[in-house]
Amino acid sequence: MDKYSTKWLKVSEPFPHVLHVELARAPVNAFSQEFWQSYGRLFDSIVEDGLDVRAAVVTSVFPKIFTAGLDLGDAGSLGSDGADTTRDGARSSLAMRKKLLEFQYAIGAPERCPFPVIAAVHGHVIGLGVDMISACDIRYAAADSNFAIKEVDIGLAADIGSLAFLPHITGNHSLVRELAYTARTFSAAEADKIGLLSKVVPGSKDEVTKEALELARFISTKSPIAVSGSKHLITHARDHSVPDNLAYTGAWNAHALMTDDILENLRATKAKTKANFAPLKVPSRFAGAKL
Amino acid sequence: MDKYSTKWLKVSEPFPHVLHVELARAPVNAFSQEFWQSYGRLFDSIVEDGLDVRAAVVTSVFPKIFTAGLDLGDAGSLGSDGADTTRDGARSSLAMRKKLLEFQYAIGAPERCPFPVIAAVHGHVIGLGVDMISACDIRYAAADSNFAIKEVDIGLAADIGSLAFLPHITGNHSLVRELAYTARTFSAAEADKIGLLSKVVPGSKDEVTKEALELARFISTKSPIAVSGSKHLITHARDHSVPDNLAYTGAWNAHALMTDDILENLRATKAKTKANFAPLKVPSRFAGAKL
Amino acid sequence: MDKYSTKWLKVSEPFPHVLHVELARAPVNAFSQEFWQSYGRLFDSIVEDGLDVRAAVVTSVFPKIFTAGLDLGDAGSLGSDGADTTRDGARSSLAMRKKLLEFQYAIGAPERCPFPVIAAVHGHVIGLGVDMISACDIRYAAADSNFAIKEVDIGLAADIGSLAFLPHITGNHSLVRELAYTARTFSAAEADKIGLLSKVVPGSKDEVTKEALELARFISTKSPIAVSGSKHLITHARDHSVPDNLAYTGAWNAHALMTDDILENLRATKAKTKANFAPLKVPSRFAGAKL
Amino acid sequence: MDKYSTKWLKVSEPFPHVLHVELARAPVNAFSQEFWQSYGRLFDSIVEDGLDVRAAVVTSVFPKIFTAGLDLGDAGSLGSDGADTTRDGARSSLAMRKKLLEFQYAIGAPERCPFPVIAAVHGHVIGLGVDMISACDIRYAAADSNFAIKEVDIGLAADIGSLAFLPHITGNHSLVRELAYTARTFSAAEADKIGLLSKVVPGSKDEVTKEALELARFISTKSPIAVSGSKHLITHARDHSVPDNLAYTGAWNAHALMTDDILENLRATKAKTKANFAPLKVPSRFAGAKL
Amino acid sequence: MDKYSTKWLKVSEPFPHVLHVELARAPVNAFSQEFWQSYGRLFDSIVEDGLDVRAAVVTSVFPKIFTAGLDLGDAGSLGSDGADTTRDGARSSLAMRKKLLEFQYAIGAPERCPFPVIAAVHGHVIGLGVDMISACDIRYAAADSNFAIKEVDIGLAADIGSLAFLPHITGNHSLVRELAYTARTFSAAEADKIGLLSKVVPGSKDEVTKEALELARFISTKSPIAVSGSKHLITHARDHSVPDNLAYTGAWNAHALMTDDILENLRATKAKTKANFAPLKVPSRFAGAKL
Amino acid sequence: MDKYSTKWLKVSEPFPHVLHVELARAPVNAFSQEFWQSYGRLFDSIVEDGLDVRAAVVTSVFPKIFTAGLDLGDAGSLGSDGADTTRDGARSSLAMRKKLLEFQYAIGAPERCPFPVIAAVHGHVIGLGVDMISACDIRYAAADSNFAIKEVDIGLAADIGSLAFLPHITGNHSLVRELAYTARTFSAAEADKIGLLSKVVPGSKDEVTKEALELARFISTKSPIAVSGSKHLITHARDHSVPDNLAYTGAWNAHALMTDDILENLRATKAKTKANFAPLKVPSRFAGAKL
Repeated sequence: MDKYSTKWLKVSEPFPHVLHVELARAPVNAFSQEFWQSYGRLFDSIVEDGLDVRAAVVTSVFPKIFTAGLDLGDAGSLGSDGADTTRDGARSSLAMRKKLLEFQYAIGAPERCPFPVIAAVHGHVIGLGVDMISACDIRYAAADSNFAIKEVDIGLAADIGSLAFLPHITGNHSLVRELAYTARTFSAAEADKIGLLSKVVPGSKDEVTKEALELARFISTKSPIAVSGSKHLITHARDHSVPDNLAYTGAWNAHALMTDDILENLRATKAKTKANFAPLKVPSRFAGAKL
Repeated sequence: MDKYSTKWLKVSEPFPHVLHVELARAPVNAFSQEFWQSYGRLFDSIVEDGLDVRAAVVTSVFPKIFTAGLDLGDAGSLGSDGADTTRDGARSSLAMRKKLLEFQYAIGAPERCPFPVIAAVHGHVIGLGVDMISACDIRYAAADSNFAIKEVDIGLAADIGSLAFLPHITGNHSLVRELAYTARTFSAAEADKIGLLSKVVPGSKDEVTKEALELARFISTKSPIAVSGSKHLITHARDHSVPDNLAYTGAWNAHALMTDDILENLRATKAKTKANFAPLKVPSRFAGAKL
Repeated sequence: MDKYSTKWLKVSEPFPHVLHVELARAPVNAFSQEFWQSYGRLFDSIVEDGLDVRAAVVTSVFPKIFTAGLDLGDAGSLGSDGADTTRDGARSSLAMRKKLLEFQYAIGAPERCPFPVIAAVHGHVIGLGVDMISACDIRYAAADSNFAIKEVDIGLAADIGSLAFLPHITGNHSLVRELAYTARTFSAAEADKIGLLSKVVPGSKDEVTKEALELARFISTKSPIAVSGSKHLITHARDHSVPDNLAYTGAWNAHALMTDDILENLRATKAKTKANFAPLKVPSRFAGAKL
Repeated sequence: MDKYSTKWLKVSEPFPHVLHVELARAPVNAFSQEFWQSYGRLFDSIVEDGLDVRAAVVTSVFPKIFTAGLDLGDAGSLGSDGADTTRDGARSSLAMRKKLLEFQYAIGAPERCPFPVIAAVHGHVIGLGVDMISACDIRYAAADSNFAIKEVDIGLAADIGSLAFLPHITGNHSLVRELAYTARTFSAAEADKIGLLSKVVPGSKDEVTKEALELARFISTKSPIAVSGSKHLITHARDHSVPDNLAYTGAWNAHALMTDDILENLRATKAKTKANFAPLKVPSRFAGAKL
Repeated sequence: MDKYSTKWLKVSEPFPHVLHVELARAPVNAFSQEFWQSYGRLFDSIVEDGLDVRAAVVTSVFPKIFTAGLDLGDAGSLGSDGADTTRDGARSSLAMRKKLLEFQYAIGAPERCPFPVIAAVHGHVIGLGVDMISACDIRYAAADSNFAIKEVDIGLAADIGSLAFLPHITGNHSLVRELAYTARTFSAAEADKIGLLSKVVPGSKDEVTKEALELARFISTKSPIAVSGSKHLITHARDHSVPDNLAYTGAWNAHALMTDDILENLRATKAKTKANFAPLKVPSRFAGAKL
Repeated sequence: MDKYSTKWLKVSEPFPHVLHVELARAPVNAFSQEFWQSYGRLFDSIVEDGLDVRAAVVTSVFPKIFTAGLDLGDAGSLGSDGADTTRDGARSSLAMRKKLLEFQYAIGAPERCPFPVIAAVHGHVIGLGVDMISACDIRYAAADSNFAIKEVDIGLAADIGSLAFLPHITGNHSLVRELAYTARTFSAAEADKIGLLSKVVPGSKDEVTKEALELARFISTKSPIAVSGSKHLITHARDHSVPDNLAYTGAWNAHALMTDDILENLRATKAKTKANFAPLKVPSRFAGAKL
């Protein structure tokens, strides 16, 4: 698993089938273009290579911060990589749009994985950090976490996922809009109030990491067919009406129910042993997204 | 009303226009195919027969459990009713899909009723139990309730409604996903945190049943045109955008506002008496569903 | 700014770029047709005239009440303005539908503004009051607030926005449905529980107004391009799927990122001064809605 | 097969697996409520009973007419069956809406079948006749056919399918609108111009029936998995975007490709014999529609 | 009716309830901002003023040309009206977007009318001309007509309706794309081939005008409830799936069927006289558009 | 350009900015997995490498055939590449689904290009051939062409695009369904009748290739901003409603109108010279597809 580590990403397998991804770009995990692309590629590579990962956790290695967001000092991060040297506004805009879509694609990689991805945050979770965790399945936050949808303070509307995901995955539009318009810092308690978090973990980095890894380990003992199917169908439900999702689920489970995992669960229950599932072995790059 | 009772369903009318449906398959309300079909047919029959029901409550007769979910011992419940004796994978899948759509149709019956259906749960609410209450309008839970989206522990993604409804009717995708992926038990407090419940009622079966029946009784005193229209339009709103729903509402209320119930309310207010509404008398089997 | 004041609307600019709209129809802000039309026209005029408003607050001038809702004594409010003197049911319905769409259009005016509109309520917020605040961006409520989706008690389903917006902007369908079906009064705490409010402000009219104005003032110091873009994109996200919104955002920010506001923010940060943004100067009547 | 015949419907099996449905209500196949309900029930019964039908043809037994449309003399056909004796406009409207949805459901039965239904028309095809053939898969018309979307001449907009289907299944909105607004008669040539027909068959009743039956016979020799899947997916494509349909098709064929019919085709090709497919045997009442 | 005529628009009522709109800006009906705004306002005014128009025809007064399209010499037509003097790319884009939406709104006015609008063209129909006729209900073209989706030759994608409407209202995407990408001239025969026209009328201006007026006169003798309902429902069908439209139609006709026009038709048929319908009298500005 | 040629694909640039792709797998252009992947990659590489291509043409090098469709002898083409050695039906289905989505992605590559792709066919166009040309912008067919949606004869529903695209891009559902259900051969005339073709070119391979290349050459002289924008917006229109597309177009052209190509067109017109446009230079891999 270590071979997937890069300059700024520590990758390990603390438990069998559990992927741990640690953001490690000193001093504050500021995201340059190179960083976010390697972040997206990591998940895509894991999937394409067919690794038997069944749950993943994303954390930061730094004790006080998850991420400070965009690296404003990076030439590539705000479009000045030469694409816009032309004076033609339309061509500049197209180049910018292309960059935005690629950026969204990188940060959205966790949604494309067939396994759940848990973001476990502590300290500062700023700007891009909110986009990143919004594209994950599950969010745990340490009590010392603080957040900011910081983009308005730069002069732009958040475009990498926060505004796309938050109205769908939380339950308080009033507060989401207030936080987006003001760019102000908000606490783990407020993040919890809008419904962004599964829970607030007392403590900081170590405590939240430990709980998230334990959750990942627990999920990794479940049937991969059942867990990846659930992820796929919840994501479909978010983007379609109830009747449309019920129809799609009918087509999906028409084959998913043929799995041996059901028999294995019955066997294990009867034998009072742990169930032992075959790997998914389906590099499903397309699982959660349309290319 | 008693004539609607079946082997495993106790049906009564504790107050005028209030339907009480009690699940009563000893020992744990495990659902066989026969059971879920009779559950769905009950609601459809009430509606087709044009009964003047204005609110319904679903509870369990057993003191410690709402339902244990699917009856895994039932031949029909996991597809082994002979349909799949063929070795042709495609034909097996089609037979399974048909069964799933019929199963969804039965459990979704409360949504098709022109009157609100309140699920009042206590004790264990496992697997199919979550699908069932998700398709109801309102959920009350006793403080002793505990829930589990249990399907992953069998080896499948929940396909009868939980994954279709929950992302739309609650406000915390992170926790919904965690609960779906882990199949772990969660308390009434956590159910409340995700926004699944109107309230947690202190106590158990008796307390929650009493409060739910009182709510049903109260709703039954309201204009049936107003209540059934509200149900229809909220369901439409859930499945369409705000502008699409506003347009549909314009077409709907263009005739609903012609109701005498408005005059009756004015009369009753002036006379300081109780309003007395005509029955809906519209067997509207299709009210909440797309043909 | 005062010239926008009307018989029943007090309009002022307590801080630069901050619009304060006060409902002032004694004794209880009951809404006649004339009132709601002037309410909608106010926002549309502000926008059409190109005023440099960057945030707005809506409050009531009366110490005990935000609004009692529809003025049932007003001939125009329930369709009796002569349009339905004909006995032709279809023509009456069309006239009613036209009135409903115009009513929705007036109450939905805040959504069409390029700036955020904050509803700051206290006391009674009845019937139409809930429709009104649902169409605003942000909701603050004084602790003494109480609410009712009152339409069912008149004999109709709420058709001016409550049922369209609430299922999308809050996170507890069960309680939303209960409140819609019963028309019962609910407290600020319950409004908060369903996710309707950013916060409950201790106190009453004065306290909530002060906090809302301070929020508006704070938002007005931010880049208008960033804030109005955020509003537009969140509204789009609410009505479209995540992938559809990400694609739209790509097209939108392809040009929005060309703004000088980004440079101005950088300059101000470096200089440690306040950023000073150009007016939006774009009378964008169509910003949040399709005409 | 004959047992499915009713007073006004002649049902036969001219070739193995081919269903022939003949409309036979003298003198002009005018549709009363009883007639349209038995028409819809016929298809649903065939499917529910699991008959091994692989293609169907609908024709009229009368030499000069397919259908004159609605039987205006029938009490039930325009709502006067007692449901609207009440003077409450809202309740009357609900009763009318229920009747319309049931009417649509009956006429839409061919779309719910897992096998293709071919309408083969000649002579007059008036009013409801156009709704009926629009809900079929394939339309053949004899050269002597003439059509009219007659509803405007009664005083209503066609509500049983013509206006819903035609804009989707043809290719000339201008002419479709002209025909709908004028209610004028149009020839087979004009029907062909808008793209309503597979072809115009020279001759009349006998010629078009013969060609349609031959087409049905030919389709009946094909793999039922392939034909029913194609029908299901084309119908899905009509109602969804291209990317949404491609994703759904991926889920669908993931299991449909497991069929033995592929092997049987290979075997037959190699052996130069006719392929011999197992029955579909899947009473799939839900195939083309959401209940 | 004449009072609706403006500098460049001749408005008359050649038959009772028939509106004739003639484009009359010499020499080639080039569209300046003033021209297109007055075109849109004309239809909106007719509707707002409640005129009893039941069908309209749009033609050109010039013998050789319907319209040459955009007036490139007009300062306002390509955005140079001062809005973009700022150097801020984002603000310029917003101003441009506002202008485009207002332009689309003006040209789309015929779709908002409750009565059908027939475009009767001859000679050159260039650029904006195609957008204009696409937003009408019905298109008749003289044999001497020629068309061009000219925008690509200016350097832009057509944004006022051609690309939005044509893929939905015609039946040959291949040719539509070819014509859009090449901006080449195409004949009435090719326009007919893609399904853009109801028919090609032999002759030129006089012949096509005569036939279109006769069609309008014929439509004007029909029930306004039936015709305007048909227009509304076909437009809805174009923009929604078949099941969604059937459901909407159920709600719509639930009240439209209460019309006296049905009785009047029965009476007239029995009496063998002409039916005589009440005016629609519903200024329904919002009829064909989403608020 | 030659460096893009592969074993089975001849790639050339017959005119500046015009890409000619020739299918060249003897003897009948049967598609193995390797072949279709290299076909998709070709277009993606051209775009990623930023080549200044402005129009492309796809033809076959063989005088009698465009393509025979799927290579049934290829191990990979029907799923037997080892992925399905497991006996677990669910895992087999997931592997199959992954393969289908990748197959769709390869064949859909022309839609992702920012330039138009013209399919110019002659002789046999069988099975996959129809999927391939459906995903192109424009279709020209030689008079000697014949087509077949052949998949039903193998035992499956076409899943690579035919059934997804045809109901949207043509204008005769009746005939499309007939052709899909029967798998029968159909002529260029019938292909033209359903609206699949821009035109039928008299002759065969040479004649149709010549005309298509001339069309591509002509398109390549147009503004790339205008042509690529038109392609993007027509594709969006196909998959969205008219109002949704108009709104998206407003956002898109808000920046596209800033192009210098408009000025260059004005300059060239005035100077009576050929316009000379800058390259698009925007490797826009995501242009026509949802991420």
